[in-house]
Amino acid sequence: MGDAFVSEVMGTGMLILLGAGVVANVILPKNKGFNGGWLLINFGWGLAVFAGVYVAYKSGAHLNPAVTIGIWTSGAEDFATGIPVTAANGFLYVVAQMTGAALGAGLAFLAYKPHFDEDADAGTKLAVFSTGPAIRSYAWNFITEVIATFVLVFVILLFGQTPSELGPLAVAMLVVGIGASLGGPTGYAINPARDLGPRIAHALLPIRGKGSSDWAYSWVPVLGPLVGGAIGGLVAAAYIV
Amino acid sequence: MGDAFVSEVMGTGMLILLGAGVVANVILPKNKGFNGGWLLINFGWGLAVFAGVYVAYKSGAHLNPAVTIGIWTSGAEDFATGIPVTAANGFLYVVAQMTGAALGAGLAFLAYKPHFDEDADAGTKLAVFSTGPAIRSYAWNFITEVIATFVLVFVILLFGQTPSELGPLAVAMLVVGIGASLGGPTGYAINPARDLGPRIAHALLPIRGKGSSDWAYSWVPVLGPLVGGAIGGLVAAAYIV
Amino acid sequence: MGDAFVSEVMGTGMLILLGAGVVANVILPKNKGFNGGWLLINFGWGLAVFAGVYVAYKSGAHLNPAVTIGIWTSGAEDFATGIPVTAANGFLYVVAQMTGAALGAGLAFLAYKPHFDEDADAGTKLAVFSTGPAIRSYAWNFITEVIATFVLVFVILLFGQTPSELGPLAVAMLVVGIGASLGGPTGYAINPARDLGPRIAHALLPIRGKGSSDWAYSWVPVLGPLVGGAIGGLVAAAYIV
Amino acid sequence: MGDAFVSEVMGTGMLILLGAGVVANVILPKNKGFNGGWLLINFGWGLAVFAGVYVAYKSGAHLNPAVTIGIWTSGAEDFATGIPVTAANGFLYVVAQMTGAALGAGLAFLAYKPHFDEDADAGTKLAVFSTGPAIRSYAWNFITEVIATFVLVFVILLFGQTPSELGPLAVAMLVVGIGASLGGPTGYAINPARDLGPRIAHALLPIRGKGSSDWAYSWVPVLGPLVGGAIGGLVAAAYIV
Repeated sequence: MGDAFVSEVMGTGMLILLGAGVVANVILPKNKGFNGGWLLINFGWGLAVFAGVYVAYKSGAHLNPAVTIGIWTSGAEDFATGIPVTAANGFLYVVAQMTGAALGAGLAFLAYKPHFDEDADAGTKLAVFSTGPAIRSYAWNFITEVIATFVLVFVILLFGQTPSELGPLAVAMLVVGIGASLGGPTGYAINPARDLGPRIAHALLPIRGKGSSDWAYSWVPVLGPLVGGAIGGLVAAAYIV
Repeated sequence: MGDAFVSEVMGTGMLILLGAGVVANVILPKNKGFNGGWLLINFGWGLAVFAGVYVAYKSGAHLNPAVTIGIWTSGAEDFATGIPVTAANGFLYVVAQMTGAALGAGLAFLAYKPHFDEDADAGTKLAVFSTGPAIRSYAWNFITEVIATFVLVFVILLFGQTPSELGPLAVAMLVVGIGASLGGPTGYAINPARDLGPRIAHALLPIRGKGSSDWAYSWVPVLGPLVGGAIGGLVAAAYIV
Repeated sequence: MGDAFVSEVMGTGMLILLGAGVVANVILPKNKGFNGGWLLINFGWGLAVFAGVYVAYKSGAHLNPAVTIGIWTSGAEDFATGIPVTAANGFLYVVAQMTGAALGAGLAFLAYKPHFDEDADAGTKLAVFSTGPAIRSYAWNFITEVIATFVLVFVILLFGQTPSELGPLAVAMLVVGIGASLGGPTGYAINPARDLGPRIAHALLPIRGKGSSDWAYSWVPVLGPLVGGAIGGLVAAAYIV
Repeated sequence: MGDAFVSEVMGTGMLILLGAGVVANVILPKNKGFNGGWLLINFGWGLAVFAGVYVAYKSGAHLNPAVTIGIWTSGAEDFATGIPVTAANGFLYVVAQMTGAALGAGLAFLAYKPHFDEDADAGTKLAVFSTGPAIRSYAWNFITEVIATFVLVFVILLFGQTPSELGPLAVAMLVVGIGASLGGPTGYAINPARDLGPRIAHALLPIRGKGSSDWAYSWVPVLGPLVGGAIGGLVAAAYIV
């Protein structure tokens, strides 16, 4: 489990370094990708998953507590080869993911430091780290996150039924698609670690002109993905039989 | 056939959830992908097919009555392994596709509910569900749909002649390409279920400020794709021999 | 050779239907992809090749006289399995490619007919069919086409040295890349059939408000690609040994 | 080693021809891809790598001194099959990469010659060749290049742990992702040859209205990638065990 722990830390760190990075590129002033558009965001996050999956090859590349919980609700015996599904292992996966996500956000902060030092409103600077709703409505934002994460986890669990040799490109393209199609209302956290880890980093880091970390919203991109992932695992298990 | 029926319902539902979703993201007010451009729409729909094909692995992933009719006119013996080509089976495929499409549109409505509650003209809200022509001309719109769906079905039926290990990415990329290249005049239904199922959902759902479901146009994206798909099957059969 | 002839006609027809289609979508008034950007054009053409290669599976999917000439200058023995490299066969390939390209352009005209009936300047309507330079300079435009087509043919001939299971996606991505990187000055014909076939169609078709077919420029996108393709074959042969 | 030398020259030349090309297309006046956006730049460079890797099949397709140094620090025995890791071989790889990069930049200059003859500020013309920072801060720009190149080399060295049949598309997609996610502050050299070779070409070529080659900045995109690549190799070696 030690190897898997490190693997999840590093893979999720890679995911968030690149994911927070593309957001920084598009929304922080003076960047070369400034105002680069939603499809750029989608490819950035999709290929962040692509890189993260390669990195986390020792742990089955969950990178996401919603995937971990979906594997658990699907009734699988192992989180990855040699790592049985137990509460303790699941807990360690999530701790590793949160840790990696916070560290990855810190690295993204370093990569974009001069742009964080520019004038931009506090909400923009937070948005590099964590998601926020386009229209604030906790109930509907929660539903959007449940639906989008259900799609993620359900389809991932079906990948094995249709062989290909795409490797990590399959999940990358799935994430591009989810972002394009379901990311409009909430910015598609679809991953509690992707949102909470960087939000903690935002709270801790010395960011010029930063404001609130918006803890009032923070439960939505945690609980929504967990519920969506759990449903994804249950439906996949019932469907595949 | 029960498994295949459920498979087509769920796969087409996934297709339309993501396909209607990307349109909502791009055209409904305040979304993060608002005005994100045509290529975003194309990737959204292409990757919607990608996800839908993984979901519908038990039924050969038609997801589209034009594909079902094309398989029939191509002279194939089976719709999928163990499901012979018969009128009854074809009928069940289409019913499943229509059902799934309507349900998927309903899910997309839920995912984007606060954005549907914003002010937007009725035509925009309908456009999330169903296609409409850029220049209304039933005859020419019909021809465009015939040509575009011919491309879809003809090329799908030729996939087996050129081996690769792309899996569902091949049809996804084909759909990206058809949207980019032939989607300008009509919004590329290229699938009767993709258009009629959501149009029924539009008629039934309590959408704020909704207007007509434009039934006058609705036959074009049904008949056009059916004719195009049937021709695609015939030409493929004649060509492959 | 009869099968191969039909295969090149149909494959090149598919290529131009989708390739001319994406240009029509982006530049003709009122299309849903109007002003969709250069990357949309690039993906449209790249995936047009993707579809065309699947269609032309009986003839090795040249789709392009520059590829045919490059195979010849590379010293290969066969244009495709069972079709020896002879002047007669090469001539038939080119005739088939030109025929298919003209037919494909005609189909694209039908698919976009109401948009051709809108007001647009004659140069825009020609641009759906054939390429034209951003800055007219026959010598430099020729050089750009030589370089871009060299890249196309040289890399295609090296594909076999690096195994993958991408199938037709490899050449599609190569064409996306060439368009992005070398398409700026001339619109990247990189294929005499892609340019001359549709130019002939433009001259023949009853297009509302059409102007000159710009025959003065027409030799550039024919001779440039032929020279580039021939060099590509020679260099590949010398390099692979 | 002679074959490998030529292979690195030609592969890196292809990389820079297409990479400098896409920048020229987007930033030089009157190009068809003018102002085409950051994602176009990212796909252009990613697919430039795609083509370059196919070309450099005889040398393991480093194309980048940061990759060469990362292979060295990873403790690998060979740079490519039959080419042991020695200082002399490493030196030859780097000389070949620099040579190819300068030649590729020269070819891109030829392909875009009429556009270089248009009025544009000197900085824009330099930007076709070499990277420059969005916000000049040598220390932070250096850090950004270290991080981005670490990602490149570390993930490339992990590719072998997760089998797929993507071939050169894997590294191409990785480079698209790095550009989208970490390219904002410095324009992602992530390759000393990519930056220094073309900068030398810029200094030598007779470019109309050219200005400084900005040698003051030139060490950043050389040293940053070398450090990042070296760290990538070390971390990969420690991690894979």
